[in-house]
Amino acid sequence: MIIELKNDAKPETVEGIKIFLEEKNLPYRFHHIYQKDVFTVVSETDEEVLNILGKMTGIDEIIQDKSEFPLASKSFKNEPTSFCVKNNIIGGNNINIVAGPCSIESEEQIFGIAEFLSKSGIKFIRGGAYKPRTSPYRFQGLGLDGLKLIRAAADEYGLAVVTEVLDSSLIDQTYPYADILQIGSRNMHNFHFLKLLGRIDKPVMLKRGMSAPIAEWLMAAEYILTEGNEKVILCERGIRSFDNLVRNTMDIAAIPMLKNLSHLPVWADPSHGTGRRELVAPVSMAAVAAGADGLIIEIHPDPAKALSDGAQSLYLDQFTALLSQLKVIAQAINRPIDPQISKQTKNLNLCVE
Amino acid sequence: MIIELKNDAKPETVEGIKIFLEEKNLPYRFHHIYQKDVFTVVSETDEEVLNILGKMTGIDEIIQDKSEFPLASKSFKNEPTSFCVKNNIIGGNNINIVAGPCSIESEEQIFGIAEFLSKSGIKFIRGGAYKPRTSPYRFQGLGLDGLKLIRAAADEYGLAVVTEVLDSSLIDQTYPYADILQIGSRNMHNFHFLKLLGRIDKPVMLKRGMSAPIAEWLMAAEYILTEGNEKVILCERGIRSFDNLVRNTMDIAAIPMLKNLSHLPVWADPSHGTGRRELVAPVSMAAVAAGADGLIIEIHPDPAKALSDGAQSLYLDQFTALLSQLKVIAQAINRPIDPQISKQTKNLNLCVE
Amino acid sequence: MIIELKNDAKPETVEGIKIFLEEKNLPYRFHHIYQKDVFTVVSETDEEVLNILGKMTGIDEIIQDKSEFPLASKSFKNEPTSFCVKNNIIGGNNINIVAGPCSIESEEQIFGIAEFLSKSGIKFIRGGAYKPRTSPYRFQGLGLDGLKLIRAAADEYGLAVVTEVLDSSLIDQTYPYADILQIGSRNMHNFHFLKLLGRIDKPVMLKRGMSAPIAEWLMAAEYILTEGNEKVILCERGIRSFDNLVRNTMDIAAIPMLKNLSHLPVWADPSHGTGRRELVAPVSMAAVAAGADGLIIEIHPDPAKALSDGAQSLYLDQFTALLSQLKVIAQAINRPIDPQISKQTKNLNLCVE
Amino acid sequence: MIIELKNDAKPETVEGIKIFLEEKNLPYRFHHIYQKDVFTVVSETDEEVLNILGKMTGIDEIIQDKSEFPLASKSFKNEPTSFCVKNNIIGGNNINIVAGPCSIESEEQIFGIAEFLSKSGIKFIRGGAYKPRTSPYRFQGLGLDGLKLIRAAADEYGLAVVTEVLDSSLIDQTYPYADILQIGSRNMHNFHFLKLLGRIDKPVMLKRGMSAPIAEWLMAAEYILTEGNEKVILCERGIRSFDNLVRNTMDIAAIPMLKNLSHLPVWADPSHGTGRRELVAPVSMAAVAAGADGLIIEIHPDPAKALSDGAQSLYLDQFTALLSQLKVIAQAINRPIDPQISKQTKNLNLCVE
Repeated sequence: MIIELKNDAKPETVEGIKIFLEEKNLPYRFHHIYQKDVFTVVSETDEEVLNILGKMTGIDEIIQDKSEFPLASKSFKNEPTSFCVKNNIIGGNNINIVAGPCSIESEEQIFGIAEFLSKSGIKFIRGGAYKPRTSPYRFQGLGLDGLKLIRAAADEYGLAVVTEVLDSSLIDQTYPYADILQIGSRNMHNFHFLKLLGRIDKPVMLKRGMSAPIAEWLMAAEYILTEGNEKVILCERGIRSFDNLVRNTMDIAAIPMLKNLSHLPVWADPSHGTGRRELVAPVSMAAVAAGADGLIIEIHPDPAKALSDGAQSLYLDQFTALLSQLKVIAQAINRPIDPQISKQTKNLNLCVE
Repeated sequence: MIIELKNDAKPETVEGIKIFLEEKNLPYRFHHIYQKDVFTVVSETDEEVLNILGKMTGIDEIIQDKSEFPLASKSFKNEPTSFCVKNNIIGGNNINIVAGPCSIESEEQIFGIAEFLSKSGIKFIRGGAYKPRTSPYRFQGLGLDGLKLIRAAADEYGLAVVTEVLDSSLIDQTYPYADILQIGSRNMHNFHFLKLLGRIDKPVMLKRGMSAPIAEWLMAAEYILTEGNEKVILCERGIRSFDNLVRNTMDIAAIPMLKNLSHLPVWADPSHGTGRRELVAPVSMAAVAAGADGLIIEIHPDPAKALSDGAQSLYLDQFTALLSQLKVIAQAINRPIDPQISKQTKNLNLCVE
Repeated sequence: MIIELKNDAKPETVEGIKIFLEEKNLPYRFHHIYQKDVFTVVSETDEEVLNILGKMTGIDEIIQDKSEFPLASKSFKNEPTSFCVKNNIIGGNNINIVAGPCSIESEEQIFGIAEFLSKSGIKFIRGGAYKPRTSPYRFQGLGLDGLKLIRAAADEYGLAVVTEVLDSSLIDQTYPYADILQIGSRNMHNFHFLKLLGRIDKPVMLKRGMSAPIAEWLMAAEYILTEGNEKVILCERGIRSFDNLVRNTMDIAAIPMLKNLSHLPVWADPSHGTGRRELVAPVSMAAVAAGADGLIIEIHPDPAKALSDGAQSLYLDQFTALLSQLKVIAQAINRPIDPQISKQTKNLNLCVE
Repeated sequence: MIIELKNDAKPETVEGIKIFLEEKNLPYRFHHIYQKDVFTVVSETDEEVLNILGKMTGIDEIIQDKSEFPLASKSFKNEPTSFCVKNNIIGGNNINIVAGPCSIESEEQIFGIAEFLSKSGIKFIRGGAYKPRTSPYRFQGLGLDGLKLIRAAADEYGLAVVTEVLDSSLIDQTYPYADILQIGSRNMHNFHFLKLLGRIDKPVMLKRGMSAPIAEWLMAAEYILTEGNEKVILCERGIRSFDNLVRNTMDIAAIPMLKNLSHLPVWADPSHGTGRRELVAPVSMAAVAAGADGLIIEIHPDPAKALSDGAQSLYLDQFTALLSQLKVIAQAINRPIDPQISKQTKNLNLCVE
């Protein structure tokens, strides 16, 4: 249950509701989220409770449907959510582009890529320090050393870092090195983990589960929102299907579907979404044409030698070529790519952190 | 097995191969397809046969892999296939747009839509006379009367007709009224039917089976090609997946994958591909951005009253709005929409019918 | 719409309804099916029609839900449907076992298998004369010659023949040689074909489409029933899933689900349902334990040399071993395997052909 | 890479390999697992390393294939793995039955069910304290209080406890109360978590991921085994498919497939595997007939009031009826249900804990 307060609700109202919920033994959290005061009550409730709350003043709306995602929905907040990461605006009408290797492999590799991105005008670098590999006998990532390397490279070249937190036990370790915490497809259904991510103050990029219906995905985002973290990015990365010619099936329609249902920014990962290098460029173009608010793309200076995901990583010159095509499409549909915060936008509420 | 002759193969060579195959009791067909002379041998063959053929003169290549689609593949013909339908060029660098109702419902309806399409600059009308409905208790189409109506409406407004042949027993009935014969998803695996379609001289638009891997789809096209009909269009229309929020999952990556594997034109059907009106425009944009050579879109003057597929049909003004967006994207990627044949192109081999 | 008449409805009632439907221009069929008189009206109907019918005498029930399968459902007929094929009873409490090769390959092969089956106490032989092969370059079956061979072999050894009709254009050719007409997975959605099968007087075994939900499958059966053929067997043969270790995923729960929803007999095909020889025996056992009314199993004296489906065909001695295991399970759950018609059962209405 | 030592390998050999791996900077673990001494080297290795190892004495085999599951495979250990939990033998030729509510709801509920199970001769109770609910607004379980309740109830009635660990951060909390730690479908791909589970000394029941191919599932088990925990049970619980009539599609063939590939015990969960109460009994029967080594079944005294999964929970009397059917099937295939350890079996190595 969500209890949404009126904008002018008085402190006594808030106190009254707290006392009432505690009396009734209903576990709740109270947040100021998307400029509204909201109680989230994570428990079954009965008619009596609803009746009493219904009579209280200061309450704007009580949302009851348990199979829904009230905080993530457009009915809660109609305009697209946007927020800042370093000097970049995420969401809104903007398109963000993230690129980098699947795994952080060495100082040389990650600094080389950071330099390349910086020269290409890219603002976000990706790279994994802990790799979720299907087989225990494959390269598992550099761990903490990898995190330190990507942070140093990003700082050197003025980039923001997107990197995966692999497990709840690794949040503390990853947090200081990341600007955006990526939650992988394999963790989308880990509700305990999602709750912990709802309690931190950095943006979370939540990838879709391999076989998650859109409603389940939005409910996973809701787990983060109910704990008070309002900076959630959804990222379509392909679903599991029957055709083994591709690694995953990019669900392109998920992008406009999410934009219709939710105010959250929607990114696309055409690298995992296809698993094949030659499909990354056309699917990137398609994602932007379908309305995606961002792309996250795997690149590698020498994909054949990549320690993971080589088959889906673009060569650097392929990325450069794709970038100029993307600019043409973005311009045709009037969407800026990675605009920087001006003095004017700095004043916006969204960027005051 | 495919036996591809050299361009300068002599009549005696052809005769020699025919006699040899007949002696060996191997059923074959001999075609001039894509400007090459080809024997298709639809049977298992043994080493001995291969050895003898291997020594014959006049043979360019013998293709043996049974799990492949040699005639449909780029290794057989590298440049994109294109051909004419009325005054329109299908394939090549062009984008074709087909629109119309799911079902032909009445004279008024189909003439009204034909007039609208003509005014919108559209060159192809679609409409079903026999409808494959999941339930036997739903509207099954107007049948032959429907075919006559769409033909009359198309002729009145100078449009080409795309309509479905539902079953092999209906080929003869549908043939005279159609310019392009549509084969529905439910029939993609009907190999006997596909062979019959390979023997006619009109283009066949082959939709992807609901759960057909891309290789199976290309082998279905190959069934048509092996019988000598070289005018095959592939149409992605969404695959069956686990999310019941949508009717089908549009496999956007199938478009560039097919363009990489085959020379055949690839169209997209965003109406069936999503099943939801609000997704048709963004997915149409995505399909063009991903490299589709055509779109087939369901429209209806009053979708709420449509006898079938109302939920996925665009209102006419939505279609008009989509069309101007598509023109922007097509221009950005330098692809013309529905160019007409000039005197010059008329001279091309492909348009001599 | 279904109009179900009372048992004592007078001829005038029937005439009155016919005249009314014709006046209203509603295409209908009138059948005596499962011992009831039924009009099936295959068209949209309006309130007015319903009101008038609602006031007519002699009508037991009007069933309106277009997304359902009234004739196939348990609410239309509660007891399990059973009928005779030669001296065998299909359905009811009995378990039927069909075995044979994927393809009829030669006289020697099919007579050899028929003799083996006869010695094993099996009553039904299967074998394909027209094979739906994914690739046009693979063995396509012996055609009419194959039909003649399996009929002769079956007659020699007192077996009933189960064989596939591949296309509507082949019904006439296949009919005389078959005792049960098999409709393959690839044709489950071919509604025009299904209607034609509803007009013949032999049993139809309808395999599940590769990605057909159970409701769609039952509506496919309904297409046959609405045309008056009441002898329909459903056959689960695996669905398409994401794991390429198996050819198909046997949906074992479909068996009890169908038995709950419908009165039609439900068979299982563990050969196609798995695609791997070593899984056929355990999945056969499972299907019987889950309530299947029959099994159809591919066997071959030398699977390595089979012209099709060798990997999923049992060796003859494996089949013999499986058969004795099946008898143990069947006995444990009190279900007879392939009982023959006694004089007593011959008198049953169901066996008068 | 796996380095399997000979049974008579000397301590110097072990030391020598350790020193070599450390020199080469290859992270390894050394375990005595399934009565063999094994090094697991979780890293990429090069030819040179292999050459040197190949020349060392005392090494039985070096297994290199990174896409495999050497420790879980039959080639590593041919006889079925079995071990003891309290007085029960898991695996081998035995069938184990676990039953209980989806969620632990109250003292009354869990003690009532424990008493019922004890009277029914059942030896294992299941029940969730932390519930992975798709929606954050649904009942999330009693947490630590729930764990204490199920432990107390189990001890009162002499049962072993099977309960889920929801997240790596909850292992310590759950460990003392569980006899078998259940890892849910949503966590099968959480490799970091799996590694932690490999370091504890209690059995782990690993459910299949919703869309995990069998090879991925076995590699997930391998993550546990490589850390030294040899007591892993695999549990098939249905996969995600396209038919929304059921919650999941029970992959019955996975059971014999796993038994062919691996020595680990394979259980089945027909409750989650179908999601519908009326399918639980037939699918339980099928699982046992297909070779399952155990069943885990949800029951509830009043399913309509269950706080979770009511639709798939059996009424107590339904469970009683199912149990007697299962005994008939188990007897027919000569497999004992939940045998207790005799003095003789106590002496077995496997039961010395």
